[in-house]
Amino acid sequence: MMIQTVFWKNNKVVMIDQKALPLNRRQLVCSDYRQVITAIKDLTVRGAPAIGVAAAMGAALGALSIPSEPVAQFRKKFHAVCNEIEKSRPTARNLFWAIERMKEHLENTILSGKKNLAGELIREAKRICAEDIEINRRIGQHGSALISDGDQILTHCNAGALATAGYGTALGVIRAAREQGKKIHVYVDETRPVLQGARLTAWEMKEEKIPATLICDNMAGFLMQQNKISKIIVGADRIVANGDTANKIGTYSLAVLAKSHGIPFYIAAPISTFDFSLKTGATIPIEERNGAEVTHFKGVQSAPQGVKVYNPAFDITPGKLISAIITERGIITRPYSSAIARLRKGIT
Amino acid sequence: MMIQTVFWKNNKVVMIDQKALPLNRRQLVCSDYRQVITAIKDLTVRGAPAIGVAAAMGAALGALSIPSEPVAQFRKKFHAVCNEIEKSRPTARNLFWAIERMKEHLENTILSGKKNLAGELIREAKRICAEDIEINRRIGQHGSALISDGDQILTHCNAGALATAGYGTALGVIRAAREQGKKIHVYVDETRPVLQGARLTAWEMKEEKIPATLICDNMAGFLMQQNKISKIIVGADRIVANGDTANKIGTYSLAVLAKSHGIPFYIAAPISTFDFSLKTGATIPIEERNGAEVTHFKGVQSAPQGVKVYNPAFDITPGKLISAIITERGIITRPYSSAIARLRKGIT
Repeated sequence: MMIQTVFWKNNKVVMIDQKALPLNRRQLVCSDYRQVITAIKDLTVRGAPAIGVAAAMGAALGALSIPSEPVAQFRKKFHAVCNEIEKSRPTARNLFWAIERMKEHLENTILSGKKNLAGELIREAKRICAEDIEINRRIGQHGSALISDGDQILTHCNAGALATAGYGTALGVIRAAREQGKKIHVYVDETRPVLQGARLTAWEMKEEKIPATLICDNMAGFLMQQNKISKIIVGADRIVANGDTANKIGTYSLAVLAKSHGIPFYIAAPISTFDFSLKTGATIPIEERNGAEVTHFKGVQSAPQGVKVYNPAFDITPGKLISAIITERGIITRPYSSAIARLRKGIT
Repeated sequence: MMIQTVFWKNNKVVMIDQKALPLNRRQLVCSDYRQVITAIKDLTVRGAPAIGVAAAMGAALGALSIPSEPVAQFRKKFHAVCNEIEKSRPTARNLFWAIERMKEHLENTILSGKKNLAGELIREAKRICAEDIEINRRIGQHGSALISDGDQILTHCNAGALATAGYGTALGVIRAAREQGKKIHVYVDETRPVLQGARLTAWEMKEEKIPATLICDNMAGFLMQQNKISKIIVGADRIVANGDTANKIGTYSLAVLAKSHGIPFYIAAPISTFDFSLKTGATIPIEERNGAEVTHFKGVQSAPQGVKVYNPAFDITPGKLISAIITERGIITRPYSSAIARLRKGIT
């Protein structure tokens, strides 16, 4: 089954409504870039690479709404659209990466003398989408070398097809290993508060008939103690120069537990997730979301009225706790500072 | 505010319906011991000491239903009631402790020649209830010595008044420290899947105006990394001879995280929670509950239909990860084998 999470169709951005999963499979069709911004904010589309694709397509949608006018005017209006999109969510690097790439593409298009700026920006957004799937397949290929027949793999949140344009990063590695005939059992952290594991990863596993068991986040340590987990693979929202990685809240705890139990802990992410400009994770902006995500589930209240809530959406896992980072260019290991510097050179 | 979790009234067992909290405060009145068994099974009453009190009162209710007949017949029927109650839940030691004490009291009553066996068993059950509150106050007194002004204390599940006859074990320590004028902020793990933290501990904190912040279980590590947690205190369901402790699922992960961050990790529990007969935690029976607790919240489904779920209700924290165990007889520390052997001697 090929899940197409975000795509361009008839000058509209179409996305799977991830809030409705797993009970309902429906699409959101955006004809205005502001709808894309709302979809990013309210988690209709989520997952760093998918946010990047959605942002690029949102920018293309914005470009389409700008009347033909002098280049300087077009640029100004396009940048205003980009600025709005960039404010949708703060942590995932791919959002900013995609917007930077769209802006750069506008400049290249202008330099080349082509006239249909919006048309070229649409093509670029579609390219970012197509590349993302291809990149995921390469991440899967590289990462599958780390997976053994019989592995019992724990994953957190959803770093699957739904978190990308398709195929997935962490789940892409699992898909690739399965395609090679390796038998794998996946343990799925439900991933509070928004339950991306229970709602999305469990759904992907079911759709592809990959054997999986759902657990609550707080059960992961007990499974490790019982030797039920042989590897952990998760995605990433931002990886900085020393390997420190922002990912869904709860990732850091898993990495500490993995180390304490001698279990390999892998990150799978495209190079567009790397933020080469930040030296350590300490300066990654961590989004705090509404406390209602914790106190309510689909309108059903679980905590007393007025309780104070702390709801960070991400945490920072120090590079020293990460056994390897799987990218489309290959697998990198500690020391990450030099490995990531080489990665940067290889692409600039 | 004095919360009376389980009590005896007019030959009935009255308990706060903890499934209805925090949105509704209502009571369940049991006139048959089988209602008490159901209430233990379905978590209307939960928390090891509260289960112990409920079990004793359930046994008394059972005794009341046995017609006056020869002692041997009465004993046989009472033991049958006790056996049924003991099958309600497997992990909490206090359940078995309370039933053993009721059986022993029956023998002592028979030996003393008293005739009103049921009446004597009711008195014993009420005594167990009253003693539990007194024991909690002593745990609170001892434990408060470990608490400093300004502490930010993380707790998991509910080891409060609702988990006992009243006052609480882990939360009893916090209550006692507050009564001494110490300023404390409590971080409350929501405690999936049944949300005893969000529903019960957050409610107790609000009722007593103790400053508290609710978090998801998977956020605890990130808080520790940010130095927002100075101490962790939880209750226990069973503590064995070497200090290994069964408690609500997720406790073990917290203990590993605490060790990794150099944060003291305390257990607060009465001596009735100790199982001196088991040498290590490996043989503690761990209850596995229905997967629907994970996939549904109050009837609202979050995971795909048919997903496989693993739902252990408890985990085992090795004694070596526990900084101290706070009992009504004082605080014990490693090596636990000798400390617990002394505790056992002191009471036998």
